[in-house]
Amino acid sequence: MDYSSKALELHKKYQGKLETVSKVPIKNKEDLSTVYTPGVAAVSQFISQNPEAVNELTLKGRTVAVVSDGSAILGLGNLGPEAALPVMEGKCLLFKTFAGLDAFPIVLNTQEPEEIIKIVKALAPTFAAINLEDISAPKCFAIEKALQGLGIPVMHDDQHGTAVAILGPLKTAVELAGKDWTKLKVVISGAGAAGSSVARMLSDVGDVLVLDSKGIISVERQDLEGYEQSSKLRESSAYKNDLAKITNKNNVQGDLQKALEQADVFIGLSVGGVLKPEYIKNMAKDPIIFAMANPIPEIYPEEAKKMGVRFIATGRSDFPNQVNNSLAFPGIFKGAIQGHAKQITVEMKKAATDALGNILKNPTPDNFVPSMFDPKVVEEVSQAVIRAIK
Amino acid sequence: MDYSSKALELHKKYQGKLETVSKVPIKNKEDLSTVYTPGVAAVSQFISQNPEAVNELTLKGRTVAVVSDGSAILGLGNLGPEAALPVMEGKCLLFKTFAGLDAFPIVLNTQEPEEIIKIVKALAPTFAAINLEDISAPKCFAIEKALQGLGIPVMHDDQHGTAVAILGPLKTAVELAGKDWTKLKVVISGAGAAGSSVARMLSDVGDVLVLDSKGIISVERQDLEGYEQSSKLRESSAYKNDLAKITNKNNVQGDLQKALEQADVFIGLSVGGVLKPEYIKNMAKDPIIFAMANPIPEIYPEEAKKMGVRFIATGRSDFPNQVNNSLAFPGIFKGAIQGHAKQITVEMKKAATDALGNILKNPTPDNFVPSMFDPKVVEEVSQAVIRAIK
Repeated sequence: MDYSSKALELHKKYQGKLETVSKVPIKNKEDLSTVYTPGVAAVSQFISQNPEAVNELTLKGRTVAVVSDGSAILGLGNLGPEAALPVMEGKCLLFKTFAGLDAFPIVLNTQEPEEIIKIVKALAPTFAAINLEDISAPKCFAIEKALQGLGIPVMHDDQHGTAVAILGPLKTAVELAGKDWTKLKVVISGAGAAGSSVARMLSDVGDVLVLDSKGIISVERQDLEGYEQSSKLRESSAYKNDLAKITNKNNVQGDLQKALEQADVFIGLSVGGVLKPEYIKNMAKDPIIFAMANPIPEIYPEEAKKMGVRFIATGRSDFPNQVNNSLAFPGIFKGAIQGHAKQITVEMKKAATDALGNILKNPTPDNFVPSMFDPKVVEEVSQAVIRAIK
Repeated sequence: MDYSSKALELHKKYQGKLETVSKVPIKNKEDLSTVYTPGVAAVSQFISQNPEAVNELTLKGRTVAVVSDGSAILGLGNLGPEAALPVMEGKCLLFKTFAGLDAFPIVLNTQEPEEIIKIVKALAPTFAAINLEDISAPKCFAIEKALQGLGIPVMHDDQHGTAVAILGPLKTAVELAGKDWTKLKVVISGAGAAGSSVARMLSDVGDVLVLDSKGIISVERQDLEGYEQSSKLRESSAYKNDLAKITNKNNVQGDLQKALEQADVFIGLSVGGVLKPEYIKNMAKDPIIFAMANPIPEIYPEEAKKMGVRFIATGRSDFPNQVNNSLAFPGIFKGAIQGHAKQITVEMKKAATDALGNILKNPTPDNFVPSMFDPKVVEEVSQAVIRAIK
């Protein structure tokens, strides 16, 4: 299927795909007097006297901002805000389709972290939550962190949505394979937004190795710049220093092949084709592979299967076990908003992961990832998130 | 009719009134692959190579931002961004209902002009045009001015939408009354956003007097602060000095009663009840009155009629001749966007005014203001605006 030309046609036909619609008919002056002046004045006054009522009386209580600066669009790179707009519009449709939440895209004419932080702070009164999207690493970390005190949930989905969407099904696969979670050796190829978040959420496994383009990240690496040495947040890679401290217990040096020795799990969040079939030979018995690079995965399922791999997930819809952020972010945001959370905490993300891992009642190697169209996904993830709010 | 409690009920029932909706159904992975990844990547790439295509392939080409800082909400004053949200949401419904344009409310957590300017500039890639709303004078002038180079139309509706909505029907009434437009003496009560814009657009009449709370504005007034003396834009009233220079040809001093001597037209953009019936005695023959204060007009129609007034318009839907911004802004924005205008110029506003004044084929004293529900209003105003784009 040629999705590219189909997508171009569709976007041209509808001039994009998200529209704003009135929930009430406006047919005459009576209707106008209720939704607008003079009636609306009473609503404004009520909110000014009861600030919390804004959540019940306006779209604020049910609307997510999908914010991007266009600096890391899908796998395409820094194409700027306008090119990001079709992706953000699409993300808004997913919010509505899967979570029943309204959402609006905001693409920004600046890529400076300090500016982005200021602007998102200023936009907060309009929204129930902020979904940061397609903002490049490492500045995405600083931006998300700076916005945690905003009073509404702010989550960079490329980090945490991805992590939850992978780790839920990973739990299912680990159980199916009869492996011990606490002794798991996990190798993550890719130290960007998603790889970092996955590594941080794996604090309870045996060991985690994270690789960037130069090899395994370790405290020995001299090329990992610190915040102090960086003149600008956007150039900082201090987060890799942080990663080195919480991963790689045995201080292993080397490349992906070395890292994979006796590994139980490979999680690819990098580039197509990096996982060579021969590397799999040295992995532990019955390895589990998540090859998330898109459209070309780190290894194709048929190649992995030739090497005896039973468990493989990709990001593609044309193979079994498709992992997609839509498994995670709709339920996470729905739960956070319904539960009136002020932040999305580690506990909430872990609860979402566990819930996602328990959706399938009879998982198999060919079906250990639930479908994002299964209504139980958003329902159970959101309920778990609500229970995890403090 | 108690619109207040009706409005509160409606806002509670629907949790506000604007929702975001997909223009295309999303029922399966095929649909997802077209509106989102992988298909959407082709749309992003196409836009990065053909920047203008963003207008045809995304909501940018048809969506207006309705931006407010909540500093001057209706007649209620500075109640802040959250309290402004129901009004902005309502305004978005009007954009859709009357102009077929999508619109989204943005209320800002800052009231500093410099910050507002920066934020609106950063938001521009998402929108076809910016409608500034309920931002207090005098900072509204500086903010609107600073945003004129943005590349998309930016208009403060409280200034220019109001002016066009009044001046169109005024032209109709002047013709009906057999008065000579070029010799008209017009008195404007209120020197805020709307009063200033009306005065500026009346450059071709006999004379205009503008009054603030201290009386007729003139070059003799010592209390009109200049930009230079002001430490902050928000405190500046230099615009009144500017108004003094372009109005009051005979340098008249005094109060409203004095101003109204031999005046043909009274335009009230101030507070309820300021036009005393006895002031009308000294106006010119067959005076025309626009009493726009809401909900209590500067004079009630029945009082004015007792004084022999034939032509009176108000902002209220329960009297004949209701003037409302909905007569102007939908057509102005529709025309500006369809005509790919980079700014909304004086010529475009004058064209809108003339078109609006010509809608009614058989106007009468009881019906010289067209209904905003008459589809000819937006159609003819928008076409006139398009023709006026250079």
